[in-house]
This record gives sequence, structure tokens and C-alpha cells, in this order.
Amino acid sequence: MKAVILAAGKGERLSQGEDKSKPKPLIPLLGLSLIERAILSVKKGGIYDFVIVVGYRSEEVVKYVEEKQKRLGVNLDFVDNEEWKKGNGVSVLKAREKLKDENFVLLMCDHVFDLSILKELLEYAKNRGDKCVLCVDKPENVFDLEDATKILLERNKPKAIGKGIKNYNAVDCGLFYCTPAIFNALVEEIGKGKYELSDAVQCLIDSDNLEVFDVHGRFWCDIDTQESLKYAKNKMLKSLEKPTDGIISRYINRKFSTKIFTPLILKIYKEVTPNQVSLLSFGVAVISALLFLLCHPVIGGFLIQLSSILDGCDGEIARLKNMSTGIGGFIDAILDRYADAIILLGMFYYLMVTKIFDPLAVIFISSLAIIGSLMVSYTAARAIADLNYRHRGNRDFRLFILFIGGVLSYIHPVSVFFSMVIIALMTNITVMWRTVISWKMFRE
Amino acid sequence: MKAVILAAGKGERLSQGEDKSKPKPLIPLLGLSLIERAILSVKKGGIYDFVIVVGYRSEEVVKYVEEKQKRLGVNLDFVDNEEWKKGNGVSVLKAREKLKDENFVLLMCDHVFDLSILKELLEYAKNRGDKCVLCVDKPENVFDLEDATKILLERNKPKAIGKGIKNYNAVDCGLFYCTPAIFNALVEEIGKGKYELSDAVQCLIDSDNLEVFDVHGRFWCDIDTQESLKYAKNKMLKSLEKPTDGIISRYINRKFSTKIFTPLILKIYKEVTPNQVSLLSFGVAVISALLFLLCHPVIGGFLIQLSSILDGCDGEIARLKNMSTGIGGFIDAILDRYADAIILLGMFYYLMVTKIFDPLAVIFISSLAIIGSLMVSYTAARAIADLNYRHRGNRDFRLFILFIGGVLSYIHPVSVFFSMVIIALMTNITVMWRTVISWKMFRE
Repeated sequence: MKAVILAAGKGERLSQGEDKSKPKPLIPLLGLSLIERAILSVKKGGIYDFVIVVGYRSEEVVKYVEEKQKRLGVNLDFVDNEEWKKGNGVSVLKAREKLKDENFVLLMCDHVFDLSILKELLEYAKNRGDKCVLCVDKPENVFDLEDATKILLERNKPKAIGKGIKNYNAVDCGLFYCTPAIFNALVEEIGKGKYELSDAVQCLIDSDNLEVFDVHGRFWCDIDTQESLKYAKNKMLKSLEKPTDGIISRYINRKFSTKIFTPLILKIYKEVTPNQVSLLSFGVAVISALLFLLCHPVIGGFLIQLSSILDGCDGEIARLKNMSTGIGGFIDAILDRYADAIILLGMFYYLMVTKIFDPLAVIFISSLAIIGSLMVSYTAARAIADLNYRHRGNRDFRLFILFIGGVLSYIHPVSVFFSMVIIALMTNITVMWRTVISWKMFRE
Repeated sequence: MKAVILAAGKGERLSQGEDKSKPKPLIPLLGLSLIERAILSVKKGGIYDFVIVVGYRSEEVVKYVEEKQKRLGVNLDFVDNEEWKKGNGVSVLKAREKLKDENFVLLMCDHVFDLSILKELLEYAKNRGDKCVLCVDKPENVFDLEDATKILLERNKPKAIGKGIKNYNAVDCGLFYCTPAIFNALVEEIGKGKYELSDAVQCLIDSDNLEVFDVHGRFWCDIDTQESLKYAKNKMLKSLEKPTDGIISRYINRKFSTKIFTPLILKIYKEVTPNQVSLLSFGVAVISALLFLLCHPVIGGFLIQLSSILDGCDGEIARLKNMSTGIGGFIDAILDRYADAIILLGMFYYLMVTKIFDPLAVIFISSLAIIGSLMVSYTAARAIADLNYRHRGNRDFRLFILFIGGVLSYIHPVSVFFSMVIIALMTNITVMWRTVISWKMFRE
């Protein structure tokens, strides 16, 4: 199946802001231009062939997207709609020649949406015969209701569509599953001088050729203004908080990473990859260990916490840029484990060098802390591999304890020793606990 | 689907040996009685309902199997064939009432076979209509050809079957996929006073109701004599060698484990579970670490190698007893990692106590060895979880180096230090190497 992306409009209101110089499809949102984001979102839904209808400053848009094509990993076909000023219905019709009577997905490059919406739409649209399916949402979920295309539903059947209709109970999310029926409707309406897509959709409604799919309040946003861009940004950053986040992640790390570090990193270097951020977090952990080694445990402690926060950013950037991959998760995990071990090794040396504790006790506690930290993660990985079971991680909490241990050494170095004792106990007990509950759950 | 197991015969020749006291189905073979092994083999093929035809000393057999039923995790139905002396065809016919015209699998309790045979038979037998399917093998693969039931095939179609036929090119493996057609054949032949199953099978051949499935030389054995029991035992132990075994496993550990330790453990305590053997291996590792701590590195070294060999036995026993489970693998893995870490910790203390090396260097090398050892296993587990890719393990090799390090300390303790250096380098380089090749293989 192919996807048609409309990227022909000027987007005047949006371009009035800081990104005046850019055509709308090229405006960046959290590390991806709108057109890249649209392509990657659809790609995650399993579609690799695209027809992109360009119009306003088309050469610039085509050049930009073609440069990214290899990285995007999709097949692109461009259609230049010189009549883009007339209305978006014309743009859709221009794509007809590229589609050979196939069904296709239709979306606007200025709409961002949760990845699950497309997947469920495709699932829903199977076996609907020749009918087109339009994604709809409740009016109260829309950021800019005034500008939205409204729909009137009666018993879940669409009755009317249009920006100006007074009586409505849903809005159009800008994501369609189309059959070739749409082209007949477009030809008919354009013949009447009605150039908007919604005119053709009204025609589909009249001939009972349209169904709707309720997105149930999942995130989507039509980005038409600076305000909606900002709204989408905040919503997307907010969505990075995971229900599986540990307590320190939820109340501390995610606040810093989603509100400060991730947007900052993307602002400084838009092309950043998640792996680069993983390396940054690892580098900070190594510096922290060196600071412990050189007997600067307070700064070392702060850097542990910084590394812990940055460790959230790689995954956030991966999700924001639709770049989450198995290999990325794998490399991040390996780096995290080395970071854990190296931090503990730095603290170990610090305790040996301060000479206020019995060296054999320090060796014992530090080794147990290193072993336990790695074993907690090992148990989690094996539980997935052997039992297909996911344990909740607690790296955020472990690093937080070490951070506190480091910082409190300002008062007395014993705090470092105590934080290691806590880690040594906590981690190894966690492993035992996981082994016991796994046994109870999975023995045959 | 149900499976019918014939366990009615006396098995006179086999009982002449040491197990004189036992009915044939109860004779042990590597930790499982023949009847348990037959049930568990079929269970691994996805069949959980059994009809077991008993005859000779039936009460004893029924009582024995019923006691094991919960652990076997299958549904059992017994049929008592008082006429068991007549021939095994009668036993099959007795099972008819329990089968309600279903297709079923038929096997003899005294036949052991590779688990893949049943799975492939079931796959092959699909869509064969009303035809029964008999597993056959080439005559040269049979241990006791004289006693085997021979078959003559012409262009892969069976033409004749019988113990006494002169002209043959295949033998019956004792594993059938049966449709109710077998019962009609049995009734007919038994009416003529022909009581053997092979008489009914000849009848199926005559009416073109039999196909054959070639097991292609995979292991199976009819256990009729002490010699065949011994042959099966050796074959099964030999099959425990894995193609993925590392070099030390292949040339040293497996030789000891399959030839000495696994048979010995099963001889001493037939009911042993794989987890108990995992714990034993772990216990030996802990003692080895204590011996290093107490400055007995030579004995410590030998115990490392013993623990390494025993670490193979848990999996061997699991496979021999059809008890391999995800949770068993999980617990074994956790114990192995703690064993690795504890052994290295013991050596770490030994090096600190001997005071012939700079303590900071010892800490560095020992920590790197511990971290690297755990990380090698962590990378392997994550590669399965994230990338569905299996790395070849090298625990056998790591423990062997530590064993050599321990033993050579008889000459000078520096050998322990050197073995730790090798482990520290080898493991961490392996992790780096795995990360790099994973990146090359899986980046998108």
C-alpha cells in the first residue's frame, strides 16, 4: 500500500513565526521536519511507498526530502501541483496517476499523530469494501476547534462535513484510508468548482461511501499556527513519560529530561541520533567516576545524577524521531551497564584512597555492589529472553542513591560507603526476589 | 489428539538382567523409566492425553504411573488387557473404546526415539486422509536387526511387513500415526487368529491404507535386551554434545559430564532435578572461592573446573529427562553468573591477601574481570531479548583459564593474577566485539 502526503500548501500562519524562511513541510518539530515526521510515522505503520504532493516552493521541498531519502528508508514519488492555491482537493487528485486504482492512506504533512492511530485505522479499514474511512475525534480534544473541519455523526454514521457547519459532534483528524472512490468524488466536485477535499468527502457521505474511525482521544494535532506547534511540542514531550518509569524517573529525571535536556539537545543539534546521546550519558558517567577517583565525590555525585537524566534522553529522542530500534536499545543497555560498573569502580577507588575504612570490607561491599548492579540488569534481560517477562527497572533509583552518597560526602565520606552498602544489599536482594517470583510464576 | 502406549508385554529378555524385579515399562533408562520416557517424549510433541494398555503385572504399572501423573502433567487412561500374552494387536484393539473414532498416535513403551521424529510424523500425517502412517528407517541404522520388524518398500510404498520376511529394505520404528482403519484391520486379522500388530499392518498394506515416513536415520531404539538398553544409553549420552559447545566443553567438559558425572548422578539419585544439579555446581563454585580466600588456590582451581563440568550436567539431565524449561534455564543462568562472580571475588581476595601485587592494580584487574565476565553474559542475554540473536557462550573457556591459573599457583601465585588479567581482557574485548558486530548486523 502507498501513502499520499499533501505537502503543497503555504502554511502562511505558521510561517509568520521564527521559521519564516521555510516552507511549511520543512518546519522542525522536536528534531524532525513536519514532512519527515509524517513519512516516518507512516513507515512505522508498515507503509514504505509514498506519493508526496508538493506545490508551494516545490523544488525546495523535493530537494530537502530527496536528501533525506536514504536515511528515511522509504520509496518516494513526487507530484508537483502547480494549482496548489486552488484547494487541497486538487492536490489529492493529482496523486491519482501514481496509484493505479489501489487503496491508499492519505494524510496532511502538517498533522502529527500518535503511531497507534494509523495501525488501528489500517486494521479497522480491512474488509470495509469500497468505503473510505476517515479518522475522527471528539471536539473537546481539539486544540484549535475554530480552524478544525467539523463532522456531524448520527449513530456513528457521518452526515455532514465542513469547516463552517454549525451542528457537529466530531472533528476530522486529517488521516484517511481511501479507496479509488475518492477520485470519482473529487472529479465530480472539482467539476462544480469545489476544490477542497472536504467537498469530495461530503460527496462520499452523500453516496454512503464513507465510514469514520474514532481515535478515542489519542494524540493528534493539526499544526497551523505557532500556538499549535507549541501545543504539539508540549504534548509530545509529555507523552515521553512512561507508565513503567520508576519513582525517581517519574518525579525527577523525566521532568528534567523532557522539559530541559531533550528539547535543548534537539535545539542545539537537530541531527542528533539516540546513540550519540547514549554515548554522552556514558561519557558523563566516566567523568563522574574519574572525579571520585580524584577525590571530588560531590561533583562526582552530581554528574551521576546528570548521567542518569541524560540516560532518559536517548530513548526520548529515539521516540520523538521515530528512531527506536532494537540495536539502539541494545547498545544503550551495554553502555548503561558499563556506566553503572565504572561509577561504582570510581567510588570503590575513592573509598580505598580515603583509607578510613577497612580495605577488605571496602572490597567486599564494592564488589557486591558491582555484581548486584550488573545482576539486576542481567536478570531482567534473561527474564525477557527465557520467560518473555519484563521486570520494571530501577536504575534511576540506584543512581540516585549513589548521587546522594556522593553529595553527602561533603559532610563525611562515610556517606559514599553507606550508599554502596545500600546498593550492594538492594541489588542482590532484588535478584533473589526476582528469581523467587519467577520460579513461582513459571515453574511447570 | 490422543496417544496409545503399549505397555502390556513382559519383556522377558530385558528382565533377565539386573532389573529382574521390574516389569519392562518400569525399567529405568538415564533417570526415567521407559514408560515415563515414552509419555514425556509424546508430550513434547504436543499430545497430553494418553491411553496406556497394560497387561503383565498391570496393577504395579498402573500404580507406578499414577503416582507420577501430577509430575508428568498429562491425562492418563488405562486399559487392562488380560490377553496380553496373545500378541500386541490385541492390546491395540483394547484401546479402541477410549478413542471414539479419532486419529491417534501409537507407540510401544519400549521404544525410545528422538523428539523430532514425532513432530515431523505429525506434520507429515496431516492431510493423508484415512491412511495410517508408519515410521520406518533403513536396516543399517538398526541395532538389533534380527529382532526388528522388516518392511519391503517399492518406490516408497510398503509392500510387505513381518519379522520373518526375507526380502526387505526398511524396518519398522514402532511409531505409528493411526486412523480408525487400523481397528478394522485388527478385527479382521484377529478373527483369523493373527494377533500381532504387524498382521493388521500387512492388512492395511494390502488395502492400500498405509504410508511410510522415513525417519532419516534420526535416533530411535527398540529396547528388548540388556545390550540394546546399553546401546540406547550410550547413544543418548552421546547426543548430549551440542554443536554450539565451546572448545573446552567439546574436548574436556562434555567427555567428563556425559561419560561420568551425568550417568553417575542419575545412578545415585534417579529423581534428581536439573535445578538441584545447578545448585550443586554453584555450591562447588562457592567452595572453590572459599578455598582461594583461605589461600588454597590449587584445590580451588580444581574445584573451578569441577564446577564447570557439573554446569553441563544440569542441562544434560534436563534433556535426558525431558525436563528442559525456560525457568530452569533462567535459574541456571543466574546461578552461573553468581558462581562466576564469586570465584573471581575469591581470587581477588587471595591476591590481596598474598600482598605480592600492588593492591590498586589488583582491584583494577579483578574488578574488570568481574565486570567483563558478567557483561559477556549480559550482552548475550540482551542480544536474544533485543535482537533475537544468539551468541556462542565461552564460560567453559573462562573457567578453564581460571582453573589453570589456580593450579599453576603451585609454582607461583602470579599465575592467578595472570589468569585474571586474561579474563579481564578477554571478556571486555568480547563485549566490545559483540557490540560492534551487532551494530554492523542490525543497524537500520
